[in-house]
Amino acid sequence: MQKSYIIKIDCPDEKGLVYKVSRVLCENDINIIANREFVDLENRRFFFRAEIAGVLDIDNLKSELHKTLKNSANISVSKKEKKNIVLLCTKEAHVLGDILIKHYSNELNANILAVISNYNLLEPLVRKFDIPYYHISHEGLSRVEHEKKILECLREFEVDFIVLAKYMRILTPEFVSHYRNRIINIHHSFLPAFIGANPYKQAYNRGVKIIGATAHIVNDNLDEGPIIAQDIIRVDHTFGWKDMQMAGRNVEKTVLSTALGLALEEKIFINGNKTIIF
Amino acid sequence: MQKSYIIKIDCPDEKGLVYKVSRVLCENDINIIANREFVDLENRRFFFRAEIAGVLDIDNLKSELHKTLKNSANISVSKKEKKNIVLLCTKEAHVLGDILIKHYSNELNANILAVISNYNLLEPLVRKFDIPYYHISHEGLSRVEHEKKILECLREFEVDFIVLAKYMRILTPEFVSHYRNRIINIHHSFLPAFIGANPYKQAYNRGVKIIGATAHIVNDNLDEGPIIAQDIIRVDHTFGWKDMQMAGRNVEKTVLSTALGLALEEKIFINGNKTIIF
Amino acid sequence: MQKSYIIKIDCPDEKGLVYKVSRVLCENDINIIANREFVDLENRRFFFRAEIAGVLDIDNLKSELHKTLKNSANISVSKKEKKNIVLLCTKEAHVLGDILIKHYSNELNANILAVISNYNLLEPLVRKFDIPYYHISHEGLSRVEHEKKILECLREFEVDFIVLAKYMRILTPEFVSHYRNRIINIHHSFLPAFIGANPYKQAYNRGVKIIGATAHIVNDNLDEGPIIAQDIIRVDHTFGWKDMQMAGRNVEKTVLSTALGLALEEKIFINGNKTIIF
Amino acid sequence: MQKSYIIKIDCPDEKGLVYKVSRVLCENDINIIANREFVDLENRRFFFRAEIAGVLDIDNLKSELHKTLKNSANISVSKKEKKNIVLLCTKEAHVLGDILIKHYSNELNANILAVISNYNLLEPLVRKFDIPYYHISHEGLSRVEHEKKILECLREFEVDFIVLAKYMRILTPEFVSHYRNRIINIHHSFLPAFIGANPYKQAYNRGVKIIGATAHIVNDNLDEGPIIAQDIIRVDHTFGWKDMQMAGRNVEKTVLSTALGLALEEKIFINGNKTIIF
Repeated sequence: MQKSYIIKIDCPDEKGLVYKVSRVLCENDINIIANREFVDLENRRFFFRAEIAGVLDIDNLKSELHKTLKNSANISVSKKEKKNIVLLCTKEAHVLGDILIKHYSNELNANILAVISNYNLLEPLVRKFDIPYYHISHEGLSRVEHEKKILECLREFEVDFIVLAKYMRILTPEFVSHYRNRIINIHHSFLPAFIGANPYKQAYNRGVKIIGATAHIVNDNLDEGPIIAQDIIRVDHTFGWKDMQMAGRNVEKTVLSTALGLALEEKIFINGNKTIIF
Repeated sequence: MQKSYIIKIDCPDEKGLVYKVSRVLCENDINIIANREFVDLENRRFFFRAEIAGVLDIDNLKSELHKTLKNSANISVSKKEKKNIVLLCTKEAHVLGDILIKHYSNELNANILAVISNYNLLEPLVRKFDIPYYHISHEGLSRVEHEKKILECLREFEVDFIVLAKYMRILTPEFVSHYRNRIINIHHSFLPAFIGANPYKQAYNRGVKIIGATAHIVNDNLDEGPIIAQDIIRVDHTFGWKDMQMAGRNVEKTVLSTALGLALEEKIFINGNKTIIF
Repeated sequence: MQKSYIIKIDCPDEKGLVYKVSRVLCENDINIIANREFVDLENRRFFFRAEIAGVLDIDNLKSELHKTLKNSANISVSKKEKKNIVLLCTKEAHVLGDILIKHYSNELNANILAVISNYNLLEPLVRKFDIPYYHISHEGLSRVEHEKKILECLREFEVDFIVLAKYMRILTPEFVSHYRNRIINIHHSFLPAFIGANPYKQAYNRGVKIIGATAHIVNDNLDEGPIIAQDIIRVDHTFGWKDMQMAGRNVEKTVLSTALGLALEEKIFINGNKTIIF
Repeated sequence: MQKSYIIKIDCPDEKGLVYKVSRVLCENDINIIANREFVDLENRRFFFRAEIAGVLDIDNLKSELHKTLKNSANISVSKKEKKNIVLLCTKEAHVLGDILIKHYSNELNANILAVISNYNLLEPLVRKFDIPYYHISHEGLSRVEHEKKILECLREFEVDFIVLAKYMRILTPEFVSHYRNRIINIHHSFLPAFIGANPYKQAYNRGVKIIGATAHIVNDNLDEGPIIAQDIIRVDHTFGWKDMQMAGRNVEKTVLSTALGLALEEKIFINGNKTIIF
């Protein structure tokens, strides 16, 4: 039976790559529903994503593509289906709640396997939706010890993406290395403005007329990972920093929701410290 | 003890109104924290809103203001406190869920007294949050009979605002007359484009590059009440109408949330078929 | 010597089209710098645009592509170079002036061959920039007679696009037929809201909180052609309709500038009454 | 004869200020068309702006207001009329051109007295509009010597505002002190992101999805003055830094145009390092 799949390829650029890929697809009687290609001319790198339909064996197709392309090519082929995610949070309910409601209404293209938090504050909310909640307190633990406990908990699940739904702790490079390019964070400013703590206070003190939110892939450096999505709202002199914080919550939800949607549909490529979004 | 209040005044414009109002406040030892005034020059009408702080008797103050101003002035003085709202919905969870989460996190400046729906689909969601849910089916009933039942239900509550959280039925002028200027609706287009049913399908068919949402006061004519807030998002040729619908949900939530916030803080004046937002 | 070209193809969808096209390119030693493909599943139509680099003969390449694809395919191959445009205007200077300044600063990817107007008001401005100005008054002429004169004038030039830079007259289908899909108009509302005359007055009367502008391809029905680009700005109750008009001028300029840029880079496909923008 | 004026007052907050001001206006038979008041509760400072209409003597009114209010109050009363501005620029035509076209079309509420530049590149453009152009080269001069020459040139004019229309040189505190709070700059990023040189390159390198522009009052520290207006546009991975620069020009023009409009209508208060915009 015909099914839908997503192919993602990135490799050093050379002539004829689209031809090579499309020939493999054509010979396997696979139809391209939509595709996008982009060549980063500065770094001479080729990025290709296609939604395809056909009857196919994923491993066979990957192997044929690998034979056709250089060995150095990153190739993924996956069925269009729900991904598995785990949410990390701290105390704020708005981003978490937004994802829970979407999940409850069957609007999220993902299964929420668990919520993990260093506080128990949000447990009653998560329990309402019959999702496992793991309270892993950081108190009395070093950062490494705390992360070790979280990693143990995460190992129980086959996780596609970890979503930091206002998780207010810094992750070590060691932790990040276990889920390279699969941890998505929402930062409550239009990065790179207002890196670090209390962006709304920083924004208030600077007197900006726009505040924003940034969803990004977490890498080894705080607030410096590849940016997936950003959006802004307008503020004025009548906003104290708490008003900015409250107003910013809508845009935090929207931006993380957008970024998570792109991740779940496999529309994100990592290109050095940037993203390519198809 | 000092408390915070909100004064709203609208009346035919004449010279000296700010002076008259501020004199009454000054003589009562009341401080103005913030105020805005606007004169609609076309219709020669004066609008004034102030946040004040002091020790005061609401009825006395209103009576003094009435003595000072013309009899025709609309004057309201109210404590800054939580308002009471009832939500009406049909089948879609996203707007309702957003308000429930805000209420749960104590971010909504309101008490949700009840949710009323013509379906029972959203009952499990509402029950999670321990809020009364009234399923009042419209089946087998005329519009008037159905509304009569809803009105009976509403009469149990002291309602400040009725919020149509994707309530997909048209309200009769008779119903509206009971809650004049106190029913807030979210329409899923940037009105006046795409009045009526299926705005996302209409938008898709027209090939627009922007879709929007409009929160408005409900009056006697469908989708024609005074507009409180509007916002938009960008779409492109890759969006089918269902993609537009899904994408539009974030902006529907944000716009209704904004409009409801303005209503709860008493920042909206009705001026004919328009609003004045302070 | 290697040069840059743009290929645009649209035809009924079938399996293997990307393969067929990329094979032709590969066999001709042509490199694809970037490409986008989109299939309109509803109408089963395939759209493809690629920026390519190589040494090539345009006619040969087109003929090879035509051999490979169905006869019904629309295929264009063109050098990346400046296009030729003629501007039509009436009395308002802001959109025209914006294009003139861009042209003067070498930021417009086009040669302005002439400006045609039914008034002589803007002649002094256009003359400053040493561009021919044709004053073709409509007074005393029927619409058809007037358009005939404009067509005669236009025939002197090899025009790629006609830009209506606030040309306030309706064009007949007869006129449009001479430049099918090559006339770009800026309408001062977010269509389809406020079709026809005086959109800002209509917007003011409706009390909207957002006004917009729409750039579109002109077809036979007023304000109903395929939309290329839209944008909006926020207004509030303090804006009279003339304030809206003034505020709207910035967004009119920006939207037309965006749409014209897309046209000059050949990024627009017409798909029925919609556009596909790559 | 009745005329329109603008009153601006800022002073330490105390009870009854609106009453005191409105009493003076009432006693002088002056009508308030619109007013806004804001109290900065953190710094206990009162800001008031009103548009008034009446027959009045400016000096008398100011003196009466000074008698009524504390001595420390800043009070300005001025006729609603065109302000005088001088533009400083370097090499880029887009912002300058936008202001010239607005001025030419009588849409700018200002007289442009002169354009001063450290290059002669824009002289032909400015001359087209019959505005004096002063080429004051910085070559071979110290920053102080160069600014001295500009100051000498400026002294010939009664300047209300100096507009830096992409003037790419840093001004010394000494220069700024001569036109305190009257120099408006456009910076091509959403400050405080990308302070300093080449913001578009910085933005490109960071991989942001939004770029912006900021209009601000110039103070003693580069890019740190009070922000008047900000706006943004969306970019994606297909934008190189030169594409960002080109795309950013529209938003630079719009933001400076907005900020200049606010300044010309006297809607800006300086409050420490922030602005209050009525």
